[in-house]
Amino acid sequence: MLEYVINQTLLKNSSTTGSLFFQEKEAFSGVNKIAKKVMHDLELVFGHAPASTTNRNNLGKTAVLYGTVGQSPILQELDEKKLIDLSEIKGKREVFLFQVVESPFEGVEQALVIAGSDKRGTIYGLFHLSELLNVSPLVDWAGVKPQRRESFSLSGDMKYVSKEPSVRYRGFFINDEWPAFGNWTMKRFGGFNAQMYEHIFELLLRMKGNYMWPAMWSARFFDEGPGLGNAELADEYGVVMGASHHEPCLRYGEEYRYLRGEDSKYGDAWNFISNKEGITKFWEDGLKRGGKFENVITVGMRGEQDTSIMGKDATLADNIQLLREVLQTQNKLIEENVNSNLSEVPRMLALYKEVEPFFYGDENTEGLMNSEELEDVILMLCDDNHGNLRTLPTKEMRNHSGGYGMYYHFDYHGGPISYEWVNSSYLPKVWEQMSQAYDFGVRDLWIVNVGDVATQEFPLSYFLDLAYDFEKWGTNALNKTDDYTKQWIKKQFGAVFQEGDMEKMFDLINGYTKIAHSRRPEHMNVNVYHPVNYKETDNLLKQIDNLLNTADELYNSVATENLPEYFALVYYPAVGNLNLQKLWLLAGKNHYAAKLGKMEANKLTEQMKECLIRDRELVDHYHTIEDGKWYGMGLSEHIGFVHWNEDECQNPILMNVMPANKPRLVVTIDGTEQKSEGSPWHKNKLFLDDFLQPNVEEASFTISSISDLEADYKITSNQPWLTCSKTSGSLDGLEKAEEVIQLKVDRSAMNGETEGSIEVETPVGKVTIIVNAKPVDVSGLSEMTFVDTNGYISIEAEHFASKQEASGNNTNVSRFEVLEGYGKTLSAVKAFPTTEFFTVGEDAPYVEYQFVVQKAGTYEVDFYMQPSNPVTKENKIFCGLQVNEEDVNIVNTLPEGYRVDGEYWEVGVLDNIRTHTSKINCKEGLNTLRIYAVSPGFVLEKLVIYPEGKKPADSYLGPTETYYVGK
Amino acid sequence: MLEYVINQTLLKNSSTTGSLFFQEKEAFSGVNKIAKKVMHDLELVFGHAPASTTNRNNLGKTAVLYGTVGQSPILQELDEKKLIDLSEIKGKREVFLFQVVESPFEGVEQALVIAGSDKRGTIYGLFHLSELLNVSPLVDWAGVKPQRRESFSLSGDMKYVSKEPSVRYRGFFINDEWPAFGNWTMKRFGGFNAQMYEHIFELLLRMKGNYMWPAMWSARFFDEGPGLGNAELADEYGVVMGASHHEPCLRYGEEYRYLRGEDSKYGDAWNFISNKEGITKFWEDGLKRGGKFENVITVGMRGEQDTSIMGKDATLADNIQLLREVLQTQNKLIEENVNSNLSEVPRMLALYKEVEPFFYGDENTEGLMNSEELEDVILMLCDDNHGNLRTLPTKEMRNHSGGYGMYYHFDYHGGPISYEWVNSSYLPKVWEQMSQAYDFGVRDLWIVNVGDVATQEFPLSYFLDLAYDFEKWGTNALNKTDDYTKQWIKKQFGAVFQEGDMEKMFDLINGYTKIAHSRRPEHMNVNVYHPVNYKETDNLLKQIDNLLNTADELYNSVATENLPEYFALVYYPAVGNLNLQKLWLLAGKNHYAAKLGKMEANKLTEQMKECLIRDRELVDHYHTIEDGKWYGMGLSEHIGFVHWNEDECQNPILMNVMPANKPRLVVTIDGTEQKSEGSPWHKNKLFLDDFLQPNVEEASFTISSISDLEADYKITSNQPWLTCSKTSGSLDGLEKAEEVIQLKVDRSAMNGETEGSIEVETPVGKVTIIVNAKPVDVSGLSEMTFVDTNGYISIEAEHFASKQEASGNNTNVSRFEVLEGYGKTLSAVKAFPTTEFFTVGEDAPYVEYQFVVQKAGTYEVDFYMQPSNPVTKENKIFCGLQVNEEDVNIVNTLPEGYRVDGEYWEVGVLDNIRTHTSKINCKEGLNTLRIYAVSPGFVLEKLVIYPEGKKPADSYLGPTETYYVGK
Repeated sequence: MLEYVINQTLLKNSSTTGSLFFQEKEAFSGVNKIAKKVMHDLELVFGHAPASTTNRNNLGKTAVLYGTVGQSPILQELDEKKLIDLSEIKGKREVFLFQVVESPFEGVEQALVIAGSDKRGTIYGLFHLSELLNVSPLVDWAGVKPQRRESFSLSGDMKYVSKEPSVRYRGFFINDEWPAFGNWTMKRFGGFNAQMYEHIFELLLRMKGNYMWPAMWSARFFDEGPGLGNAELADEYGVVMGASHHEPCLRYGEEYRYLRGEDSKYGDAWNFISNKEGITKFWEDGLKRGGKFENVITVGMRGEQDTSIMGKDATLADNIQLLREVLQTQNKLIEENVNSNLSEVPRMLALYKEVEPFFYGDENTEGLMNSEELEDVILMLCDDNHGNLRTLPTKEMRNHSGGYGMYYHFDYHGGPISYEWVNSSYLPKVWEQMSQAYDFGVRDLWIVNVGDVATQEFPLSYFLDLAYDFEKWGTNALNKTDDYTKQWIKKQFGAVFQEGDMEKMFDLINGYTKIAHSRRPEHMNVNVYHPVNYKETDNLLKQIDNLLNTADELYNSVATENLPEYFALVYYPAVGNLNLQKLWLLAGKNHYAAKLGKMEANKLTEQMKECLIRDRELVDHYHTIEDGKWYGMGLSEHIGFVHWNEDECQNPILMNVMPANKPRLVVTIDGTEQKSEGSPWHKNKLFLDDFLQPNVEEASFTISSISDLEADYKITSNQPWLTCSKTSGSLDGLEKAEEVIQLKVDRSAMNGETEGSIEVETPVGKVTIIVNAKPVDVSGLSEMTFVDTNGYISIEAEHFASKQEASGNNTNVSRFEVLEGYGKTLSAVKAFPTTEFFTVGEDAPYVEYQFVVQKAGTYEVDFYMQPSNPVTKENKIFCGLQVNEEDVNIVNTLPEGYRVDGEYWEVGVLDNIRTHTSKINCKEGLNTLRIYAVSPGFVLEKLVIYPEGKKPADSYLGPTETYYVGK
Repeated sequence: MLEYVINQTLLKNSSTTGSLFFQEKEAFSGVNKIAKKVMHDLELVFGHAPASTTNRNNLGKTAVLYGTVGQSPILQELDEKKLIDLSEIKGKREVFLFQVVESPFEGVEQALVIAGSDKRGTIYGLFHLSELLNVSPLVDWAGVKPQRRESFSLSGDMKYVSKEPSVRYRGFFINDEWPAFGNWTMKRFGGFNAQMYEHIFELLLRMKGNYMWPAMWSARFFDEGPGLGNAELADEYGVVMGASHHEPCLRYGEEYRYLRGEDSKYGDAWNFISNKEGITKFWEDGLKRGGKFENVITVGMRGEQDTSIMGKDATLADNIQLLREVLQTQNKLIEENVNSNLSEVPRMLALYKEVEPFFYGDENTEGLMNSEELEDVILMLCDDNHGNLRTLPTKEMRNHSGGYGMYYHFDYHGGPISYEWVNSSYLPKVWEQMSQAYDFGVRDLWIVNVGDVATQEFPLSYFLDLAYDFEKWGTNALNKTDDYTKQWIKKQFGAVFQEGDMEKMFDLINGYTKIAHSRRPEHMNVNVYHPVNYKETDNLLKQIDNLLNTADELYNSVATENLPEYFALVYYPAVGNLNLQKLWLLAGKNHYAAKLGKMEANKLTEQMKECLIRDRELVDHYHTIEDGKWYGMGLSEHIGFVHWNEDECQNPILMNVMPANKPRLVVTIDGTEQKSEGSPWHKNKLFLDDFLQPNVEEASFTISSISDLEADYKITSNQPWLTCSKTSGSLDGLEKAEEVIQLKVDRSAMNGETEGSIEVETPVGKVTIIVNAKPVDVSGLSEMTFVDTNGYISIEAEHFASKQEASGNNTNVSRFEVLEGYGKTLSAVKAFPTTEFFTVGEDAPYVEYQFVVQKAGTYEVDFYMQPSNPVTKENKIFCGLQVNEEDVNIVNTLPEGYRVDGEYWEVGVLDNIRTHTSKINCKEGLNTLRIYAVSPGFVLEKLVIYPEGKKPADSYLGPTETYYVGK
């Protein structure tokens, strides 16, 4: 069978051998425009633009025929000739047939047929060709250049029918668009106009999205195309327009402010009680203007600036009644002005903030749930603005005729602290949350706030791919986000980087997003990571420096022509993120060192300044590449938020020390806050406990200068089995401000000894470091048994000794799964199916941990969990806790009175962790701790067990994992 | 009558006209040595050394005859000739007769006769001549040069008999002598030897002291003269040697450590139980060695390092019994080795720390009080190491045969924080405390720890003058410390500075010591003074800068030859103190500014560095003047103590800011923590309440730059009666980092308005300053009535409306007196007699305050008091509080469980203030608050009254005084 081949020769000679693309006049104009884009993709790939013709006689022997069912005579003809079978797609949603046919008609030997079930089906089909040619969806938006090739072939029997997209409306929201996106589009396109949306829509469609909320802080989408240009362009391309939760009836945010006034026919009050007539007219005119386009019409109403409509004194019933009237009015207006068959008009009501109680009502007052006004209306739920879902539909609610939507955030302007600068979203979290949403029946609308779009391309691709093909990337694709990242990198940079470089790029993207997952850059401050405990700051700084090196290696290896796309898509958000994290980590070290008087502090301020300079240079660079293509996109403030927004933000303080007036040194035990200068009058005995963990053979302490005078030290080990990397030295506080001394233990030489000591002579005395290296008896203990050697046990959740599935009433097996990478320090465990409330003893799965403690007694267990919100209004997330043979304790891991937007929630979303402490009774020796799944949303990352009241030293990430048998 | 004249000619021609001084061979050798010193003083004054002769025939017509009763044939002769009357001094203590006689014998026309009742009487008499010649007691010690003169004359009938000194043993303790005094004497004299003590003894005697505790950290007074040289010299000069509380039987601190050992006859344990024989021998040999000299022998025993002798398990009775045995042993040894008449041997027992309970016993166990072992023993009491007396003798106890002593501190090495660098004592405090001690019958021994001596000359002069002539400077000399200071200045610098300069010097000395009285320099840190509230930091900085200017003016005006004495006695301690205070105040401002992101912070760090450099240069200068005469004396650490001693001390951290990346300004209301950048989203309304006080007509706010970019501001006053010193401007964050805007109110133009506003346009928005200037109605209110205008009332204690004396059973009138200058912000009031416990309604005097509040209700009154300790073991200091017509409330101003060395005490001695809060009920409108004296030690500086729970903003000095009628 003959292969279907497109190659350079074919395209080069098309003026003599005939055109490749057939452009039907009956086709949707938008489809033809997309075909032009695909033809341009071919030009990028083959170096020659394919020709298109509106006359089938001018086609060459090889052709591309495209069209939409019902809008394409040629498809009709091929179907009638049985060359294709349109029934395979007819009536389906956004589906395309992609098939090679032989001799479709006179003069054409072979044709690639791209048939869409509808306009978007055809468009996706056309872009499918680009995709097969390895053209990135970001080809236009980010200038990602495809690899040049000689030739492309498809098997002669190629036939592919696409699937219906998993989620009906899938798109993104350009939001919080000042100062970045706003400045960008004003400079590049002169406004929020169709010239700009041309690129946005193309980006959306190439990513297989179909839905969009336009920028609305200052822009009026329906007016600024100019005129209806934006709306007409969207409609031409089949982009379904929506609007945010407080923009009903096709009216965008700023419009009312723009049109209101004493003499306005719309009145001068955004109030459905005092200005019912004006508001109704306002909506009516909105629907008249925009109703002819494809929309999801927002219904409902909120007060100005996201406030409630009625005053504080209004009862719940009053509010519900008012909202009901609003809906009735809006439905009537839609029937009159858009479509008399209301069920055919996609509508959306956001269940957000104060609207939520109106929907649910209370025991005395029926809410709007199940009301006829909401029939066929998509009920849009929302995350907590920080990527954690809130209430999800119960099984009963999932039957709602309109289905459910989800408004998710990759960017947020609001409390407790905004994040709007560069991408800081982490795919495993998006997977975990959005696949749970889908499991809970949220399948009709997915919209994600991408802020300024720029730098969000990576998570946005994922979000839309997940929404388009949930079967491939959703709940079944456990731990597949790395695969996703790798193929995404390949799509963008397959032509540019070698395999090894792409692996490095994977490390970089995964690395910087995971670090941002631990703390978003805007949420960083000097008090986040502990400057010394568990070396968490130093360890993270090492990781960051490695990643920054990787970013620079890639920067130096990429060809000049490909630098802009690498810079904009990867380098800028990665380095921006990492450098900012570094700045704050250095600040933490600097402040800590300064408070100890260490001269090292002064070196750290120099490094901090370098980070700030790098931050500014990075933005400047971003603003100037490709003649300022991205100018404006880097303008968001991102350092040192002190309020929810960027106002009054503060750079970290540089703390410098003035040297002491005599030689002084301070000895610190790395990973702890212990310090001593060796004064005979004060603390001069320090403890190094690292070697209590049998797997640890190296530890360190640091000698730092307090003055700028030559200060000598001498180190003596009192045991042959303890060796130090230095035995003497001198610091000058300037060139040499500190020295890290590595300590090694040789357990084979210990001869039954359990404790050693190191003496450090300083200018003022002597510091004694007691090194405890008492060996641990693990005889008889099975693998994965944690042994308390340091006064506490820290367990990564995936290090259970065993786990137990359960079936109970479910058809699915209930089970805990490890979510790889989904933890600040390692991973997490979560129970599946994600929608179930389990009953201990029936269908509740568990994980079981084993650990040994030295003394029987009361212990505390800290759970480190994802800051999930409860899926029900009950505001509780339970799990079951069972120690040894005791009864199972059903524990609510949330505090009493927990609520989204409350203080406890704020801590959780900033820290991206939530901790809960339970008390347990332990026996001397071996204990087991079973954790049963109960409520959805319980995602456990880490457990820390310690004697009551003896919490391990403070840290951000929690104590590093302690020893277990087999470690 | 012929004047007695000594002049240059007389001295110049003495080789031909005969000698001036007659040196008897019978005189005490020490007296003759002192006469030599006085002769040298004459040389300094007249430019020619007087001659002396041992042959009365070689005397000139004018002579000086000196001697001691019983040691002087010539005095005997004159007495017999009735030219003098020795009976006027005979048998008296340290008294001298100073008389001009005509023709005492052949060849001499006129003689000045200086006759001492004893050795020290003669010495004081000799130095009396120097004093009359305006030779400073510091002539030798500090090289203070007397004014040169032609001639000196005494009336021919001159006759003066000195008084017996008020306190029997008066002296100082060289202590905490490393690193300063130790390095000094090692370099200058090669040890703690007689060469050095020669100067120390001279200093002591010229100051009319007679008693000394030698340096004892490392030195052994009896061994290092060399040999007995030190002790012999002391004895020669009539200096009575003592030793500190833990050095019994003429053995000094280090001796036992030096002599102990396995083979030592003294054994190897400082333990009267396990090593009774060794210890007894050690004491015996000590007495044998030193008993022949004049001593006050320390008795009793303490453990090593100031600990208790017996273990923790010992009962009180065990301890008392042990101490009794110790005393018996020691008394016996003294009888055997010093004087069989024990009552003739001055002995001292320190009632200090754990010895105190052994002395008092408890209800079940009789203490050592009144025991025969302590008969004739001086019981030495002690301050709390920070200048506040502790327990004082009750009336009954004052009958103790041995009398009482007081160990006072101008320098301390110990908790909560040491102070050893330069003088930081304030005369009004010394007066208040030591005159109270005297009132309480502590009159047999006064010793003051002067640390390294250097820089303590000023308060030491005062201490010894007070002890010598209590009638002149003590309790009767209310508010005479300024006079003392002025005459002290005149004594040292009368020859060097003009009258006006001496007034400046008074301001300088008084100023720096008062500032140190608010907080000693070593006790300063960045958190002491509030950086903005009530402008206390700025106001103090202004005072300091004025004083520093004064110091420099004097520095520049003094003649080069007199610079060293000015530098050492005044400039160095004053500037050292002030510059250090300034460093910390700047640090407070710097840290505060940095936390607000103010670019001003960076300027402040430069000023801080200048202070640190000045501090070091100052010490270096001190160490190099006069060929390094004072080398070593400046070595004590003094910056940033973090422990009780200087180990690990820390310079203030320099906080620098990195400029914001866009023009930003912050507006702050001076004297408050209010701030705003003018963001529409955040706090942008500030309140300026200064004009609520009718006497205030100017206030200010500050505009500061957050960036290094040109940032403009515009200021608009919305009222004609409010004017600003600027209406617009621009800051660049570098040259111009901030601008203080002065605001004036013109009340005459207010026309009934009560509130105005100022708008400050900033780069990001607008700050509105609401200016409240509501007038106060004072009609019908009498003078000294405080009116609440700002939500609280702050009253300087001396601003009572009236005060009431009382007599009761006392012969003295009971009364409150104002102690001028004896307050951090103004003065204090204290009841006299200082020894009395008053009974309200009988003999309790009171002060009465008047104030007006807007609302009836519960109020709180904060008392700001001197941190006095109770004079009894009851640990309470009462006063009576009476509001309006209510009952008198007897209030303990100390917290329950108060004890010296407790945390509350620590705060008090560091802050040098104690606060107590009482609740009172106030009526709307006028109220009176009477404060009755009850316990001794109640010294009130300030009262702050505010509605319950509404404490005024934090500060160190307390809120500045608020408005009163007549202010």
